Amino acid sequence: MAEQKSTNITWQERVVDRAAREAHLKQRGVTIWLTGLSGSGKSTVAVAVEKMLMDQGRLAYVLDGDNIRHGLNSNLGFSPEDRTENIRRIGEVAKLFTDAGVIVLTSFISPYRADRDAVRAKMQAGDFVEVYVSADVPTCESRDVKGLYAKARAGQIPEFTGISAPYEAPEKPELVLDTANQTVEESAGKLIQYLRDKGYILAK
Amino acid sequence: MAEQKSTNITWQERVVDRAAREAHLKQRGVTIWLTGLSGSGKSTVAVAVEKMLMDQGRLAYVLDGDNIRHGLNSNLGFSPEDRTENIRRIGEVAKLFTDAGVIVLTSFISPYRADRDAVRAKMQAGDFVEVYVSADVPTCESRDVKGLYAKARAGQIPEFTGISAPYEAPEKPELVLDTANQTVEESAGKLIQYLRDKGYILAK
Repeated sequence: MAEQKSTNITWQERVVDRAAREAHLKQRGVTIWLTGLSGSGKSTVAVAVEKMLMDQGRLAYVLDGDNIRHGLNSNLGFSPEDRTENIRRIGEVAKLFTDAGVIVLTSFISPYRADRDAVRAKMQAGDFVEVYVSADVPTCESRDVKGLYAKARAGQIPEFTGISAPYEAPEKPELVLDTANQTVEESAGKLIQYLRDKGYILAK
Repeated sequence: MAEQKSTNITWQERVVDRAAREAHLKQRGVTIWLTGLSGSGKSTVAVAVEKMLMDQGRLAYVLDGDNIRHGLNSNLGFSPEDRTENIRRIGEVAKLFTDAGVIVLTSFISPYRADRDAVRAKMQAGDFVEVYVSADVPTCESRDVKGLYAKARAGQIPEFTGISAPYEAPEKPELVLDTANQTVEESAGKLIQYLRDKGYILAK
């Protein structure tokens, strides 16, 4: 690794650190990791929170299937190894955004506890906020916005989370959003209140 | 890919877009891609620019060997394929930061023109600014801060760029910083002036 390390000359002298960026942005960088079944409302909540935060003059950014699967992870398939690598890379990117001072919201089913815990383990305490977007299969299936549950039931999608593949719910998430029983606005508001209570959003 | 795509429900409705983030940050997101030999001054210039921009109330972030090689790309080696994948992933991450409205500076030797051009090709026009940090081998070797050139000359580092592996200089970089003949401050100032002239930094 010698050659690559030659680019690291100034690491020790790094003068603009995370604290300076956070002071400038009036917020603490953090990864809000949304996990839940397909159709549970992860992306809807993520985008709502992003908008609310921006309206309040904060910098938030959503990582989701659109900007990850077709870009960074376009060379990954759906084998168990690739699914794990998919989550690992997303975790590493979220960590960079967090270091940059951004409130980053990740919106992926991320069904395996071990994969999510591996991301948490690589972050500093307080930098990883696991949010369980909780809605049971019947609820998600009744929404079935894209008809995926119907296809899964018809056997057209192998290993569909919640139908033919497991979903491992978080055991100790920082927050649970019960999207089956509250509106998107209520869920988003609850998440923002959490960020405020825990000091991720600083006074302006 | 059906299951993953289920997370994309709200893409069309995405209400917080890049323009809103850029208006908030008073800057245009952009990838400043620094390329040059080991010891040419890429990281030194990147960190200096980052500090100057932060002092001016802008949001900049440096991607370099420290935060990439030990994280996102920790599972890559130094084979030709892995080197290409290394640059590809860095490009994709830079693209995400650019979309987030950040001025991101990447500091990697990135010796192959094809790899750099592939990153440029995936970005929108104006989002990729290639900066050739130009210093010839004798200059870089005379600095040899980490003794890498000495090791390379002694045959202890195989395929060392500029000694035993090629460096393909950019043919049409947006900017050339002649670090052999100007100070770090001059180089950093020239880069910031470019950002100002081209409208990446908006009036406050």
